[in-house]
Amino acid sequence: MSRLEFWFEFGSTYSYPAAMRIEALAHSRGVSVAWRPFLLGPIFREQGWDDSPFNIYPAKGRYMWRDLERVCAEEGLALQRPSTFPRNGLLAARLGCRFSAEPWLPEFVRRVYRANFAEDLDISGVRVLESILESLGQPAARVAEANLPETKAQLRAQTERAVALGIFGAPTFVVEGELFWGNDRLESALSWAQSAVIE
Amino acid sequence: MSRLEFWFEFGSTYSYPAAMRIEALAHSRGVSVAWRPFLLGPIFREQGWDDSPFNIYPAKGRYMWRDLERVCAEEGLALQRPSTFPRNGLLAARLGCRFSAEPWLPEFVRRVYRANFAEDLDISGVRVLESILESLGQPAARVAEANLPETKAQLRAQTERAVALGIFGAPTFVVEGELFWGNDRLESALSWAQSAVIE
Repeated sequence: MSRLEFWFEFGSTYSYPAAMRIEALAHSRGVSVAWRPFLLGPIFREQGWDDSPFNIYPAKGRYMWRDLERVCAEEGLALQRPSTFPRNGLLAARLGCRFSAEPWLPEFVRRVYRANFAEDLDISGVRVLESILESLGQPAARVAEANLPETKAQLRAQTERAVALGIFGAPTFVVEGELFWGNDRLESALSWAQSAVIE
Repeated sequence: MSRLEFWFEFGSTYSYPAAMRIEALAHSRGVSVAWRPFLLGPIFREQGWDDSPFNIYPAKGRYMWRDLERVCAEEGLALQRPSTFPRNGLLAARLGCRFSAEPWLPEFVRRVYRANFAEDLDISGVRVLESILESLGQPAARVAEANLPETKAQLRAQTERAVALGIFGAPTFVVEGELFWGNDRLESALSWAQSAVIE
């Protein structure tokens, strides 16, 4: 079975539709997905940005919000523009690393995205993440695992690996070293994964 | 018949595959194309950039060149990385404005892109543009029409209109005020144009 790495950041707008559609789409193509949360903040800071480029460059931001509306409408996804953008995805990303081997991880990721982009909930705080864990049958107290030194180290290492792979934005799909950047390139990445197996 | 505006910059990499495939694809969908050359330089300068973002941000640049290779391979388009990037598209864009009503304009545009991205020729100088005009059965001397005051004013006005439309990159497709940015959004733009007629 061919494999695709899905690199995403919880604050990233286009990662939302990608997160919502990747599992079913990959499954239908016979491609397995490795979920890779990471942080864009440190990568943006390296480029001299202390905020999302969608905030720094207003024309780009206006376009993105309108485009995201269209993309979500086409996918049948609810969208409510977050009252804070971008929301800090640090805590959620640490949990995403911590629980990467859990069978409910993909659903955890989707619920965090839905909270941020469909329900305008503050995913940067413990409260929302606790209730998502509970909705998945996990003890709310597990949110504290985000603060374990090994969890912090896991996310740091994962973000460093993103940089080493050449990742500069999210979502990015990686298939055997080939990068595909952007929700609208998911199909290309899946085709690449499929042909990588045949060759 | 529904209509789509194709906004492009001759120095822009992803405008190349878009320019090469738009006419046939739009025709097959029953959508007419209005060709709109403009300059990205003034728009980038407004954002504080004095160079292509692909040069300013190395990870983004590395990704783009690799991605462009894949996109061109899939479209069966020759690609030779230009020895100068970005090439100044001022002269070609002025001619693109000047000759916008000519039936050979789309072919002129494609030949300029091919010169820049498949043949590594210097499209910023008169020589290459003269020979493209000649290959289209036009007198080489018509290249001088780029320097007419009304031609210069035409391109300036067109670039100002791009800004007014909210354009911040190329290629951009515009359908009744809706923007679609990037070669990989051409299909979405065409679908939008088609449904705009049906409604």
